Amino acid sequence: MPLSFATRRTCGWIESFALEIPFKVLASTGGERDLTTTNQEDFYVIDSCLGFDYSVMILKGLDPWEGSSSRTRNPFAWIREAFSSTEKDVINLSGLDSAVYFVFLSTVFGIFLLSGIIMLPALLPLASTEKIKRVVDSTGKNAFNDLDKLSMAHMKENGPRLFASAAACYWVSLVTYYFLWKAYKHVSDLRAEALMSPEIKAEQFAVLVRDIPSSSEGYSKKEQVDSYFRAIYPEAYYKSIVVTENKAVIKIYKELEDCKKKVARAEIIYGNSKEVNPEGVRPTHKTGLLGLIGKKVDSIEYYNKKITELTPKLEAAQKVTLKDKQQGSALVFFTNRVTAAAAAQSAHSPIIDTWTTINAPEPRQLLWTNLPKTFYEREVRQYVVYFIVFLTICFYMIPIGLISAFTTLPNLRKMLPFLKPILDITSVRTVLGAYLPQIALIVFLALLPKFLLFLSKAEGIPSQSHAERAASGKYFYFVVLNVFIGVTIGGTLFDSFKDIQEKPKSIFEKLATSLPGNATFFLTFVALKFFVGYGLELSRIVPLIIFHLKRKYLCKTEGDVKEAWLPSDLGYATKIPNDMLIFTVTLCYSVIAPLILPFGAVYFGLGWLVFRNQVLNVYVPKYESYGKMWPHMHKRILASLLLFQATMVGYFGVKKFHFTPIIIPLPIVTIIFSIVCNKKFYRFFQCTALEVASHELKETPNMEIVYNSFIPPCMNADKVPEEQLNV
Amino acid sequence: MPLSFATRRTCGWIESFALEIPFKVLASTGGERDLTTTNQEDFYVIDSCLGFDYSVMILKGLDPWEGSSSRTRNPFAWIREAFSSTEKDVINLSGLDSAVYFVFLSTVFGIFLLSGIIMLPALLPLASTEKIKRVVDSTGKNAFNDLDKLSMAHMKENGPRLFASAAACYWVSLVTYYFLWKAYKHVSDLRAEALMSPEIKAEQFAVLVRDIPSSSEGYSKKEQVDSYFRAIYPEAYYKSIVVTENKAVIKIYKELEDCKKKVARAEIIYGNSKEVNPEGVRPTHKTGLLGLIGKKVDSIEYYNKKITELTPKLEAAQKVTLKDKQQGSALVFFTNRVTAAAAAQSAHSPIIDTWTTINAPEPRQLLWTNLPKTFYEREVRQYVVYFIVFLTICFYMIPIGLISAFTTLPNLRKMLPFLKPILDITSVRTVLGAYLPQIALIVFLALLPKFLLFLSKAEGIPSQSHAERAASGKYFYFVVLNVFIGVTIGGTLFDSFKDIQEKPKSIFEKLATSLPGNATFFLTFVALKFFVGYGLELSRIVPLIIFHLKRKYLCKTEGDVKEAWLPSDLGYATKIPNDMLIFTVTLCYSVIAPLILPFGAVYFGLGWLVFRNQVLNVYVPKYESYGKMWPHMHKRILASLLLFQATMVGYFGVKKFHFTPIIIPLPIVTIIFSIVCNKKFYRFFQCTALEVASHELKETPNMEIVYNSFIPPCMNADKVPEEQLNV
Repeated sequence: MPLSFATRRTCGWIESFALEIPFKVLASTGGERDLTTTNQEDFYVIDSCLGFDYSVMILKGLDPWEGSSSRTRNPFAWIREAFSSTEKDVINLSGLDSAVYFVFLSTVFGIFLLSGIIMLPALLPLASTEKIKRVVDSTGKNAFNDLDKLSMAHMKENGPRLFASAAACYWVSLVTYYFLWKAYKHVSDLRAEALMSPEIKAEQFAVLVRDIPSSSEGYSKKEQVDSYFRAIYPEAYYKSIVVTENKAVIKIYKELEDCKKKVARAEIIYGNSKEVNPEGVRPTHKTGLLGLIGKKVDSIEYYNKKITELTPKLEAAQKVTLKDKQQGSALVFFTNRVTAAAAAQSAHSPIIDTWTTINAPEPRQLLWTNLPKTFYEREVRQYVVYFIVFLTICFYMIPIGLISAFTTLPNLRKMLPFLKPILDITSVRTVLGAYLPQIALIVFLALLPKFLLFLSKAEGIPSQSHAERAASGKYFYFVVLNVFIGVTIGGTLFDSFKDIQEKPKSIFEKLATSLPGNATFFLTFVALKFFVGYGLELSRIVPLIIFHLKRKYLCKTEGDVKEAWLPSDLGYATKIPNDMLIFTVTLCYSVIAPLILPFGAVYFGLGWLVFRNQVLNVYVPKYESYGKMWPHMHKRILASLLLFQATMVGYFGVKKFHFTPIIIPLPIVTIIFSIVCNKKFYRFFQCTALEVASHELKETPNMEIVYNSFIPPCMNADKVPEEQLNV
Repeated sequence: MPLSFATRRTCGWIESFALEIPFKVLASTGGERDLTTTNQEDFYVIDSCLGFDYSVMILKGLDPWEGSSSRTRNPFAWIREAFSSTEKDVINLSGLDSAVYFVFLSTVFGIFLLSGIIMLPALLPLASTEKIKRVVDSTGKNAFNDLDKLSMAHMKENGPRLFASAAACYWVSLVTYYFLWKAYKHVSDLRAEALMSPEIKAEQFAVLVRDIPSSSEGYSKKEQVDSYFRAIYPEAYYKSIVVTENKAVIKIYKELEDCKKKVARAEIIYGNSKEVNPEGVRPTHKTGLLGLIGKKVDSIEYYNKKITELTPKLEAAQKVTLKDKQQGSALVFFTNRVTAAAAAQSAHSPIIDTWTTINAPEPRQLLWTNLPKTFYEREVRQYVVYFIVFLTICFYMIPIGLISAFTTLPNLRKMLPFLKPILDITSVRTVLGAYLPQIALIVFLALLPKFLLFLSKAEGIPSQSHAERAASGKYFYFVVLNVFIGVTIGGTLFDSFKDIQEKPKSIFEKLATSLPGNATFFLTFVALKFFVGYGLELSRIVPLIIFHLKRKYLCKTEGDVKEAWLPSDLGYATKIPNDMLIFTVTLCYSVIAPLILPFGAVYFGLGWLVFRNQVLNVYVPKYESYGKMWPHMHKRILASLLLFQATMVGYFGVKKFHFTPIIIPLPIVTIIFSIVCNKKFYRFFQCTALEVASHELKETPNMEIVYNSFIPPCMNADKVPEEQLNV
C-alpha cells in the first residue's frame, strides 16, 4: 500500500478538534515507488495549524494550491474546491470507481431535480385545492395533517385530477430513462478511456485461468499451463504464475514480519530511553503466554535471532510450496493487451468447465484463497449463499427474537451470576429491560454488512471489488425489502409473506394502501439522513476518536502511527445500498407526496458535494475495478423504478381510478429499457472490448515488472528460485 | 452444388420399379471441383440392372464394393451393409450432422432397450396378477381390455405394487441421464475432432461481422472494416467481403442463367429433330406472355443475342453494387484458425450491439439477405415471430375452423357456380361434405413446416442450418403440445387452456387422468409410424413418381434431368420433431403401459437401420453445422423427460398413492442435470474452443481460395474488378 500513510482530513466546524492532530504528510513528489522507501525525515507538518491537508493530492504529485493562489483560510473553502474540481481530477486522484459514484449521485440528483421542477408546481396546488370532505384514509386516521393535504391522498377518488398524477408517473419514468441512458453511455465511455490509456497496467496483460484439469503424470501444473497456452498463443504468450497453497508460507511470513515490527518498536523504546538515561534501558519481555510468564529476554536480541532463524525457514517453505502445492488455477501473462483481452473472453477447451478464463483483477485485490475453487464448487457455493441470504432477509427477526427471548433479565442473572450486583441497580435494570431486544437488533444490523461480505467471499469470487459488489447487492435487497417495504406494511417481510401466501398479487396492493400513511415518516427519514449522516461523514469524528485511542495506547513506531492513520476507502458495500434506499423511498413517494422530491434532491446534491471533498482529500480507494459498479447500480435503480411503477398501479387501483390501465405500459417499458441497456452496454463491463485494448501503449511493457507485480508478498520475487521464474 | 446429379437409390421390394430408371452416375473420382465441369461422356450406367447404386460413395471417391467382394445380389444386402458401416464412414460420406442424428437414434434406442429389459419382466406380471374387480377408469369405461390389464391402470389404488412403478420412474430417469450424458460427451468429442481436422475449411478462417456502425464520411464500408480489424489484428487479418444489396445483380444473373439454360435446351431439341430430318427444325417461340402471343423468333438466335446483351449489363451491375450498395455487415478473413475463433467470440466494441461477431457459416448455407439485419431488428423480429408461433400453436384450429365454415358445399356452389355439375353428383357431394374440414386441416399440417421455416428465416438468422434448427424447435412444440397433449386431453390446446385458466396446476392432473385411456391409441400410433413410415422412406416411391413425371413432361436437357434427380437432405426440420413426438409418447407411457417400450425401441432401432442406408446411399446433406443440432435435441429430450416426470407425479396422485412425494425429486434432478450439461458442453456448440482451433493444418492455407469461396455466385470472382478483390 504505497498510500498507506495518507492522512485523513477534517474540516469545517470541527477544526478546533482537528488541530490536535500532528499532520505529517509527505511533500516529496517522487511518485509511488519512492514513497514506500522514504524515511522519516521526509515527513513534515504542513498546514496543521488549520487542519487543511491535501495529502491525497500531494501523494499523487499534484500541487493543491495551484490555481487558487488567493486561497482563503475560510472553513467553507472546501465547498468551492469541490465545485471547481472536474471529473478528470477525481479519476486522477481517486480512480474511476469514485468517478462512477459521482455519476450515480449526479444522475439521481438530476432525476429528482427535473422531476421536482415540473411536478411540484403542478401537483401540489392540484392536491391542496381539491375540495374534499374528511376521508377515511387507508391507515384508518380520519383527519389529514398539513402534509397530507399536499399529497395524492387528498385527491378525490376517481377524480379527473388523478390524470395529473398519472402524467407525473410518466414524467418521472421518462426522466429516469433519460438520465440512466446518458449515465450508462457516459460511464461506458469513461471505462473505455481508462482501459485504453497508454499507461501500462499489469492486470491488462494478465488472465486468470481457473479449473485447470488434473494433468497427466510427470508434468507439474506449471509445465501443463505453459505448454497449453504456448500451443494456442505461440507468439503472444509470456509466462504463468500457478496459484499455490500458501498457508504454511504465510504463517512463517507473518511471524517474520511481526518480529521485524517488534524489533523496530524495541529499538524506538531503547532510543527513547536513551534520552532520559544516556546508556538507555534495553527493553525486555517474557517469552511465555502474552508476555506474562516465562523467561525474561532482551527483546532486540531475541527478535533479531528469531529473524535470522525464520528467514531460511521461509525460503525453504517457499521452495516446497512452489514445487508441491500447485493448485488448479493460474495467472497467465501475454505480451500484448489485445491477446489478453481476447483470451479472457474465449472458450479454450471444448469442455467448458475446464480452463475457464477471466480478466485478471489487480494484484492488490486478488482473493488468493478463492482462486483454486473449482467450477461446480463455485456454483454450489453460490446457490447455498443465495439461500442463506434469502433466509437472512426474510427471517432475520427469528434469531433476533430468539436471542431476545433468552437474554431477558432473569435469564441473564441466572446464566451470568457475576453480573448480579450490576443488574440489581434499578436504573440499569430499567434501561436494560427496555432496550435488550433493541440491542440485539442493533448488533445484528451493525454486523450484517460484514456478514454479507463474508458470505460473498465464500461464494468463491476472485476479487475484492467483485465481492463488495456482491455484498452490496445482497444488502440492497435487505435494506429495500425490510426497511422500506417492512416499515411501510408494518412488520417484517416474514409477516407480510404470510398474508401474500393467502392471496398472491396482494403485495403491491398492500404496499399501495400503506404508502400514504407513512409519507411523513419517510420524509423525516430522508431529511434526518442528510443532516446527521453528512455531518458525521464530514467531521469524521468516529475514525478520529479511534485514531487517538490507538495512538495513545498502541502505537510506538512511526509505522504503527501510519497504520493507525491508514485512510479507508469509500466502502461501497454499505454506502450504495443506503443511497439506494433513499432513492427508492423518494422515487416511490415522488407522485404520492411530491414534497419528498426536494429532500431527495438535497440528499444526493449534498452527498455529491460532501463526497467530492472526501474523495479528493480523505479516502484512498483500495482497488480499481474500472467502473464495474455501474451496471450493478443501474440495475438496482431500474428495480426501484419498477417497484415505484407497480406500487403506483396498485395505488391508482386503491383510488378507484377507472383509467389505471394507462400506466400499465410503464413497467413493460422499464423491462424493455433494462433489456436494451443490458444488451448494449453490459458485456463491456464484464470484459475488455478488443477495440479498446488495441490502443497503443506509451512504451513496450517490461514484462518482468508486470509479472513480478502479481507475485504475492509472502512469495516475494527476490526469494523465489530463478528456475521457477524463468521457465 | 457439385453433387447435384447424385442419383437417388431404390432398393428391396420396389426393385422392379426402379429398373426403369436410367441410372447415370459419375465414375471419375476427380474430386468435387471436377464434377461440375464434367461433360456428358463422363456418365455411364452402372449396375442399373439391379437398382443398386452407391452414387454418394462413388462421388466421394470411395469404392462401394471394397471389402464385400462376395457381394450377393440379395435384396436385403443393404441391412448387412448398414450394420457393417462405422460412424467414421457416415462422417466421411455424409458429414457430422448425419452422425449426430445416429447418435440421437442410438441414444433413444438405448434408453428404451435398457428401460424395457428391466421393466417389462417386472411391471407386466405385477399389473396382470393384481386382483382387482371392475374399476371405473378415468375414461369412463367400465371394463378393461386385454392391453389395459398389463398397464398401471390395473393396479390397486394406493396399493403396495405402486412402489414398483415409482421405482420404474427412477429407473427410466437414471437410464436417460446416463445415455444423454454419454451422448453429449461423445458428440462434443466428434465436434472437436471435426473442427480440429487438418483439412482447410474456409469457414474456419472467416468471421461474420454484423451491425457495423455507419462510418464517418468519405470512407466506404470496406475501408472502414479493413482499417478497424487491421488495427486490432495487425498480423492475422487478411481481408474482408462487405455484404452488398444484390437484388439488381441477382435479377440479371438469373435472367442470364435462364437464357443459357434455354439455349442449351433449344440446341438439344434442334439436335433431336436432326435425327428425324437431316436438316433439322430450328426451334422457335413467341416472345409475348407465356410464349402464347407476340412475334415468333428463332429460339437459339434470340437467347444467344440476349446473353451477349446481358453479360456486360451484369458486369456493370456488379460494379455498381460493389461500390454503392455496401451494407452494414461483412465477412472478415484471418490467416489462422485460432484468431478467427477468438475473434468470433470476443466483444470488439465497447458498445456491444455494434461490430457483433460470430463464426461464419459455410458459404453454401449463408442466408445473404439476413446478414445486414441490425441487432435490434433481429431482436424485435425474434419476439414477433415467437408471438406468431405461440398463436399458431395454441389457436391453429381457429383459422382452420373459419375456412371450414366458409367452404361448406352450399357456399362453394354459390361462390364457384361452374363447379355446380360436379357437386351435384351424389357420391362427390357425400365425400366432399364429409371431408372438407379435414382437407383444410391436412393442407394446414402439410404447409406448417414450411411456414415455420419461413418464420425462422424471418427472424434474421444468418445460416440455413440455424434456421432449420429454429424451425425444428417450433415444430416440436406444435407436435408435442397439440398431437400428444391435445389428443390425450381430447381437443386442441386452446380448449385445454380454458380449463387450465380456471384452475392452474390442473394440466398435469388432467393429462394424468387421460393418459391410460389413450394407451392403446398411442401404441398403435407408434407401430403405424414405423410400419408405414419406414416403408415409404425405404421405397422412396413419392420422389420416384415425381421424378418420372418431371422427366416425361419437363426435362429436356441433361441438366434438367440432373436437377430433377437432385438428392435431398434428411430434412431435420420435420424429421426430428416427429421422432421427438414418438420419443415423448413412448417415454410418457413407459411406466403406465410398459408394453409401449418395445414398440418405441423398434421404431428407433429400425430407424437407425433404414437411415443408415439412406444416409450412405441416398441423401446428400445440404450443409454441415458440425453437430450444432445436438444441444437442441438434448434439450428437447430433457423437456420430454420433465413432462413424463410431471405427468407421473400427477398420475400417482390420481392413483391416491400416499408416497407420491418420493418421485418429486426427479423433476428437480432433471433440471439440475440440464443446467450442468449446459454449463459443461453448450458453449462449445456455439463457438469454437481455441484449443481445438490451434491444431495444426496439413498445409498453409491458400487464403485466395478461402476468400473466393465466400463470394456469392452472382458476384462471381472472375467478373469482379481486381481492385475490389485485392484491397
